[in-house]
Amino acid sequence: MTIRNLCVMLALVLVGAGANAQKTKPRGRDLGIPFEGTTGAFNAITDVKGVEVGFKTLISGSGKLVVGKGPVRTGVTAIFPRGKGSLDRVFAAWFTLNGNGEMTGTTWVDESGGLGSPILITNTHSVGIVRDAVIEWYAKRMKPGSYDGDVSLPVVAETYDGFLNDINGFHVTKQDAFDAMESSAPGPVKEGNVGGGTGMVCHGFKGGTGTSSRVLETKQGGYTVGVLVQANYGRRPLLQIAGVPVGKEIPDLLPQEGKPDTDQGSIIVVVATDAPLLPHQLERIVKRVSLGLGVVGGRGGNSSGDIFIAFSTANPEVSKNEGIAHLEMLPNDQISPLFEATAAATEEAIVNAMIAAETMEGINGNKVYAIPHDRLVAALKKYGRLK
Amino acid sequence: MTIRNLCVMLALVLVGAGANAQKTKPRGRDLGIPFEGTTGAFNAITDVKGVEVGFKTLISGSGKLVVGKGPVRTGVTAIFPRGKGSLDRVFAAWFTLNGNGEMTGTTWVDESGGLGSPILITNTHSVGIVRDAVIEWYAKRMKPGSYDGDVSLPVVAETYDGFLNDINGFHVTKQDAFDAMESSAPGPVKEGNVGGGTGMVCHGFKGGTGTSSRVLETKQGGYTVGVLVQANYGRRPLLQIAGVPVGKEIPDLLPQEGKPDTDQGSIIVVVATDAPLLPHQLERIVKRVSLGLGVVGGRGGNSSGDIFIAFSTANPEVSKNEGIAHLEMLPNDQISPLFEATAAATEEAIVNAMIAAETMEGINGNKVYAIPHDRLVAALKKYGRLK
Amino acid sequence: MTIRNLCVMLALVLVGAGANAQKTKPRGRDLGIPFEGTTGAFNAITDVKGVEVGFKTLISGSGKLVVGKGPVRTGVTAIFPRGKGSLDRVFAAWFTLNGNGEMTGTTWVDESGGLGSPILITNTHSVGIVRDAVIEWYAKRMKPGSYDGDVSLPVVAETYDGFLNDINGFHVTKQDAFDAMESSAPGPVKEGNVGGGTGMVCHGFKGGTGTSSRVLETKQGGYTVGVLVQANYGRRPLLQIAGVPVGKEIPDLLPQEGKPDTDQGSIIVVVATDAPLLPHQLERIVKRVSLGLGVVGGRGGNSSGDIFIAFSTANPEVSKNEGIAHLEMLPNDQISPLFEATAAATEEAIVNAMIAAETMEGINGNKVYAIPHDRLVAALKKYGRLK
Amino acid sequence: MTIRNLCVMLALVLVGAGANAQKTKPRGRDLGIPFEGTTGAFNAITDVKGVEVGFKTLISGSGKLVVGKGPVRTGVTAIFPRGKGSLDRVFAAWFTLNGNGEMTGTTWVDESGGLGSPILITNTHSVGIVRDAVIEWYAKRMKPGSYDGDVSLPVVAETYDGFLNDINGFHVTKQDAFDAMESSAPGPVKEGNVGGGTGMVCHGFKGGTGTSSRVLETKQGGYTVGVLVQANYGRRPLLQIAGVPVGKEIPDLLPQEGKPDTDQGSIIVVVATDAPLLPHQLERIVKRVSLGLGVVGGRGGNSSGDIFIAFSTANPEVSKNEGIAHLEMLPNDQISPLFEATAAATEEAIVNAMIAAETMEGINGNKVYAIPHDRLVAALKKYGRLK
Repeated sequence: MTIRNLCVMLALVLVGAGANAQKTKPRGRDLGIPFEGTTGAFNAITDVKGVEVGFKTLISGSGKLVVGKGPVRTGVTAIFPRGKGSLDRVFAAWFTLNGNGEMTGTTWVDESGGLGSPILITNTHSVGIVRDAVIEWYAKRMKPGSYDGDVSLPVVAETYDGFLNDINGFHVTKQDAFDAMESSAPGPVKEGNVGGGTGMVCHGFKGGTGTSSRVLETKQGGYTVGVLVQANYGRRPLLQIAGVPVGKEIPDLLPQEGKPDTDQGSIIVVVATDAPLLPHQLERIVKRVSLGLGVVGGRGGNSSGDIFIAFSTANPEVSKNEGIAHLEMLPNDQISPLFEATAAATEEAIVNAMIAAETMEGINGNKVYAIPHDRLVAALKKYGRLK
Repeated sequence: MTIRNLCVMLALVLVGAGANAQKTKPRGRDLGIPFEGTTGAFNAITDVKGVEVGFKTLISGSGKLVVGKGPVRTGVTAIFPRGKGSLDRVFAAWFTLNGNGEMTGTTWVDESGGLGSPILITNTHSVGIVRDAVIEWYAKRMKPGSYDGDVSLPVVAETYDGFLNDINGFHVTKQDAFDAMESSAPGPVKEGNVGGGTGMVCHGFKGGTGTSSRVLETKQGGYTVGVLVQANYGRRPLLQIAGVPVGKEIPDLLPQEGKPDTDQGSIIVVVATDAPLLPHQLERIVKRVSLGLGVVGGRGGNSSGDIFIAFSTANPEVSKNEGIAHLEMLPNDQISPLFEATAAATEEAIVNAMIAAETMEGINGNKVYAIPHDRLVAALKKYGRLK
Repeated sequence: MTIRNLCVMLALVLVGAGANAQKTKPRGRDLGIPFEGTTGAFNAITDVKGVEVGFKTLISGSGKLVVGKGPVRTGVTAIFPRGKGSLDRVFAAWFTLNGNGEMTGTTWVDESGGLGSPILITNTHSVGIVRDAVIEWYAKRMKPGSYDGDVSLPVVAETYDGFLNDINGFHVTKQDAFDAMESSAPGPVKEGNVGGGTGMVCHGFKGGTGTSSRVLETKQGGYTVGVLVQANYGRRPLLQIAGVPVGKEIPDLLPQEGKPDTDQGSIIVVVATDAPLLPHQLERIVKRVSLGLGVVGGRGGNSSGDIFIAFSTANPEVSKNEGIAHLEMLPNDQISPLFEATAAATEEAIVNAMIAAETMEGINGNKVYAIPHDRLVAALKKYGRLK
Repeated sequence: MTIRNLCVMLALVLVGAGANAQKTKPRGRDLGIPFEGTTGAFNAITDVKGVEVGFKTLISGSGKLVVGKGPVRTGVTAIFPRGKGSLDRVFAAWFTLNGNGEMTGTTWVDESGGLGSPILITNTHSVGIVRDAVIEWYAKRMKPGSYDGDVSLPVVAETYDGFLNDINGFHVTKQDAFDAMESSAPGPVKEGNVGGGTGMVCHGFKGGTGTSSRVLETKQGGYTVGVLVQANYGRRPLLQIAGVPVGKEIPDLLPQEGKPDTDQGSIIVVVATDAPLLPHQLERIVKRVSLGLGVVGGRGGNSSGDIFIAFSTANPEVSKNEGIAHLEMLPNDQISPLFEATAAATEEAIVNAMIAAETMEGINGNKVYAIPHDRLVAALKKYGRLK
C-alpha cells in the first residue's frame, strides 16, 4: 500500500465515507505515471479547504435514440468554493482557450472580480435549466425582492455529450441540479463517468470527470492548488502522457471507426487555491491551464469549448458590503510556483479522468472505449517513463 | 402629418399591419426632441433589411406578491438578424460597460466572430429556460446528432424586473420563447411595456423596449444602423435629454419614495447594420453604444448589467463551411460616421423607450410612472431645445 | 473672489508657488459653467495626495516647416502617482475607446495589476525616446544587473501634434523627459499649451492639457478622484458643453478652412484616486472616462487614440515583494459614486484644457484658435445654462 | 544528404546566398528529433511568401561591465510581412501569455485588425529608439504632414539581455534598426546568437533566434505557417524536447551556478501564414503559440514577457482606403489544422534556437552554455525518441 492510498483511506474514515467515497480503482499515479510535484491528501480539488463537490449522474435506457425517451447518459456536477452552506464570495477569474462553449455568469465574474455561487457543469443543452435551478435554490433561501448579482448570475458550464446521450431530450431537471448541489461534500472526489462528465469522450477514449492537486513546498508558501476537469476534447494522435506518444501507440479502439478524426469535444477546468490571490492574479493562474492541457495534446480545436475558471478561498472579507474589506495578497514575485502547479494538476486531472472512465455504450449503440490500462503501462515502459 | 408618420403609415400598409403594428402614440421626434441625423422608414432596428423582431408580453394579476402566482409583468423579445427563416450566420461582436448581467453565447461570438441564432432578451431569472428553448426550437428543425455551436450556444440577455414582476415565480415558459420567435416580423417595432421590456424602470421612470435608426448620407455609403434597447437603468438626477437636465426638472414621480436613489437596473442594447463590417470592426461599433448611453445619463452603476451586441447583415458568405468565403469590408477610414450613428441611435432608442412606456403597477402595489410628456416638453422649452 | 480662487491662492502660498504655479486665467467654473460635484482644493489631479505633475514645453521657430529645424510646438508631461521620489507601485488599469494611439507599458500593467513608474505623455513620434529616457533615469538610481519590469517597462503615451509641430524632426530629447520628471510637483497644475499638450487641437479649437477633480461626500467615503487630460480629439459640430451645442453655435474659427472636418486627434486621460480600489475595480473606473468624453462630444473617431489609465494611491503594500501584502478594498457596492466622479471630472478637465489653451500658430503658418470665452458664455446663456 | 538539406541548398542558390545565408550547422531535425508535420523549403518563417527577415548583431568588448562602454551582446531583428518594399497592411492579432514585457503598437493592431509596418525585436531597454527609428525610416519615404497610424505606431518587441549585455549602456542606435530593416531578405534565416536574439538565455542554455514552418496537406488547403522566436525564457528542470525530460538529463552547465533557478526571461513569437484569416481568426492562431511553448516547458514565469503576434499575408486589399475591400476568409470549420501547425512550428523554432546558439561570455565574465548536441541526442536515445 502506498502512502497516498493510506492517506486517502484515513481521509475516508475522517469524512465518514460520504457521498463521494469512490470504489478503489487505480488512478494515474497508481499506474506509475511519473507526474511532477506533491499532491494533497485526496489528490483532488477538495484538498483546498472549503471546496465541496457533488454529482448527479443520469444513466438509463439503451439502444436506438428516441428524442425525449433516451438513452440517457448525462448528469450535473457542482463545485462549491466555500462549501454548500455559504453564500460568501471568492475572488475568481476565467479564461477561454477555444470558445465553442458556454460558461454563464462570466461577465459578472469579470466585472466583480469573483463569484458568490457554486460552479455547475452539465451537458450543452441543459445549461439553461441548471442555471435557473441555481437561482431557484438560492431564492428559496433569501429574502424576496432584493437583487443580488451573485445569486442571479450563476456560473454554469457545459460539454457536449450528444454522441452517447439523448441531448435533445432535455433530460436534466431542476431537481437534478438541486441533487448535485445538495450532495456536495468535502473529501475524495469520484472520477470518470459521473455527473456532468458521464457521457464524455477524450482523445477518442472514454473521458469524464477527473481531479488532482498540488501542495507547494513550505518555503514557497505551502499553498494548495486543486483542479477538476470535465474532459471531452481531443484527437487521438495528439494524446501524450508523460511525454509518451500514447495516442500513436494505441491508434485503435476509436469511437467512430471510419469517420474523420475531429476535435469536437470540449474541456471545462475548475482551479481552486487557498493562496491569497487577487482577481488579476487568478487571471494569470487560469491562463496556465492551457499549458497543462497542451502537454496532454489539447490544441483547442475549432468545435471545442475549452473554458477555465479559477478561484481563491483566501480572503473571507471579499464578501463584505459595508466599510472596507481587509485583504491579503501574495506578491507577484512569489506566484510562479503556482503557475507550474496549475499546469501540472491540470495534466494529471485529465489523465485521471481517462483512467477512471469506463467503456460506455449510448444512443444508437454508439460505444466509447476506456483507455486500456495495460496498454497504457506498456507504452510508458517502451519509452522509459514508468516510475 | 409629418413625412415620417406618412412613411410609417405606408410601411404599415406594405407589411400588412402585422403583429408589430403599434398604436399611434408619439415618439421622441414627434415631441420635437432635436435628435441628430436621418432615420430610416420605421426609425427602428428593422430598417436594417432582414432584421425581424418579435415579442411575447406577460401581464397578469395584481396586488400582493405570492411567489409562483404573480403578479406577472415580464416577457420575451426576439431579434433575428436575417429573419426567422434563416440559420445563416452574421458577423457580430459584444461589449460590456458594466457586467452585472448575463448575455449567454458571447464566448462563441468572440471566438467565431459572429452568431447563427436569434438574440433573445427576457428577465434575469428566465435566461436559462429561454436559452434552452432556442436550442429546442432549432433542434426540431435540424438533423439529429450533429453539433453546431451556432444552435447550441444561443445569445440570450436579460434585465431585472423584480420590482414589478414575480421574478422568482419563473413565469416565462419555453412556449413563451417560441411565441416571441414565431411572431418576429419586419416593419414597425412596438415600444414601451412589451416583451422582455415589460417590467422595466429607467432613470426612475417607466422604461422598456425602444428603438431607432440612422441612415448615412450616400457619400458616406448610405448604410443603415438600427438600435433596439431594453432600458432598465439609471438614476433620476442624471437623466439628460437633448442636453437638458430633465431629471432635475422632474425630480418627483419616483418609484420608491423615500428610498435611496440607486442605479440598480441594466440596459441591453442590440445594434444592427448593413455596412460590411468584420468582427473586429463591430467591436468598435458596439463600444460606441456607451457614448450614446452616457449622453442620456447612464454611468454603468455597480448593479447594472450594461451589455451590448452588434451585428452586420452584409456578407452572406459568412456561413460558408466549405471552400473559401468571399467577403466585403468597409475600410476603417470610412467607419467614423457609423460610430456617430450608433451613439445617436442609442440615445434616441432609450428616449423612445421611456416616451412609449406607460405607468405600471406590479407586485405589492409597486408603481412606476411614465415620464409625463407635457413636463418633458416644458423642460426642453425652458432650455431652448424644442425644435 | 470666489471661494475656489481663495483656496487656490492659499494653496499656492502653501506649496511655495513652485514650478506649476499658473497665471491667474479663468477656468471652466470661473466662466460659470454648471459642472456637477465638488472639486478638491486645486480642482486638479494633484488633489489626490502624492500625485505630482511636471512639464517640459518646447516652443521655438515659426514659418515654413523644415524637417529637423522646426517650427517646434511640443513637449513632455510627467505624472508621478506617489511623487517623483518614490518607486513604489500603485494598482492601475487602462482602457481604450479607440486604439489609434500608443501607450507603452500596458501589457505589464494588465499582467501585474499596476505600475511602478511615472506616466509620461508626449507627441506620437517621441514616445520611443521618452520611454528609454524613463528607464535611463531610473537605471542611474538603481543597482545594476537586476531586472525590474516596473522600471524597464514604463508607461508613455502620446497624441499627434504634426499639424503645428515639426513632428518628424524628433525634437524631444532624453533631457526633455528628465526635465519634465524632475520638475514634477504637487499643487496647482498648468493647463493649455504646456508639456505634451503644447500642440494639441480639440474639436477644432486649440486643445492641450487640462485637469479637474471631485471629492465625494463623507458618507460616500470622502475619496478624491483627479483627472488629467491631453486633449487633441473631436469634430467641431459634436462639441457640447453643459448640454449646450457649443460646436454649432461657434462653427467658425476652424483650423483648416475648406478641408473636411475629420476626427483626427486623440485624447489621453489619466485618472488618480485615493480610494482603495483593486486592479479589476480600476478597470471599471477607467471605462467611465468614455462617458465623460462622450458628453463633451467625443466619438472615438477612426484616427483617434483615446487611451485612458487609472491608478489608486491607496495600499502602500502593493510594492511588497516578500511575505504577504496587506490591502484594503472598497466593496463594489460602494463604487458607483466614483464612476460618476470619474465621468464628471473627465468632462471638466477637457473643457478646462480648451479654456486655458491659447491661439497658436505652428508649421507653415497653420493656426489653431482658442475657444473665445465670450462666445462660449453667450452660448451657455442662450440655452439657459449659465450659473 | 537529406532531401530537406538538398532543398535548402537549392534555395540558397535561388536566392543568391544573400545576407541570411547561414553556415551549415545542424538544426533540430538534423539531429533526428521527431517533430510532427511537414516543413516548408527553408523550415523558416520565410516559407510564407513575401515574408522577409533581417538582422543587425552587435557583439563587442569583453570583461567587466562599464555602463555605456560594454561589453555589448545585443542586436535588432526585423520581420517584414510583405517585404521591405511594401507599406501594405496585413491582418494581425497578438496574445500575451505573461505580460512582463513590451510590444509597442499592439493597441492599434487590436483596433485596426492589422499592421502596416514591420515587426522589430531588440533588447528591453532599446525598444524606444528602435520604435522611433521605424517611424523615421518611413517618414523619409512618405509625404509630410499626413498622419498614418500604420507608420506612427510600429510594432517593436523585446527580451532582456542584461545578463550578458550592457543593457543600460543603450548601445542600439537608430542606424542599427535601419540596418536590420534594410538587410531583410527572403530565403533561409539565421538562427542562434543573431539580431535581437544575440544575448538570450533559454532554459538555462544559450537561447536566441529560431525559426520553423509547417505546410498543410493539400486537402487541408496547403497553407503554410511560419514561426520565428526570440527565446529567452524558462527554467532548466522544465525543459522537455520531444517528450523527453532533457532538462533533468542535463542539469549542469547552468549560467549562474549556486543561484536560484528562476524563470526570468521572455519569449517573443512571430507567426506568419498565407491562409486567408481575418483578425479574429488570427487571435485564435496566436493563442496556440502557448501550447507549443508549454510542450517545451514554458510556464510563463512572473518575470517573463511571453508575447506573440500573428499575421496573414493573404488578402492584398486589406490596405484599401477607398471603396470596398474584397476579401477571402477560410471558414472556421477548416481552421484546426492551422492550430496544430502553429503549436508544432513554435515548439520546433524554440528547439532550433537552442541548437543553433553557441556558448557566449558577456559582461563580468557571465557565461551561458550552448546545449551540448551529443548529450541531447543521448537523452533522446535513452527515452526511445530518436528517429
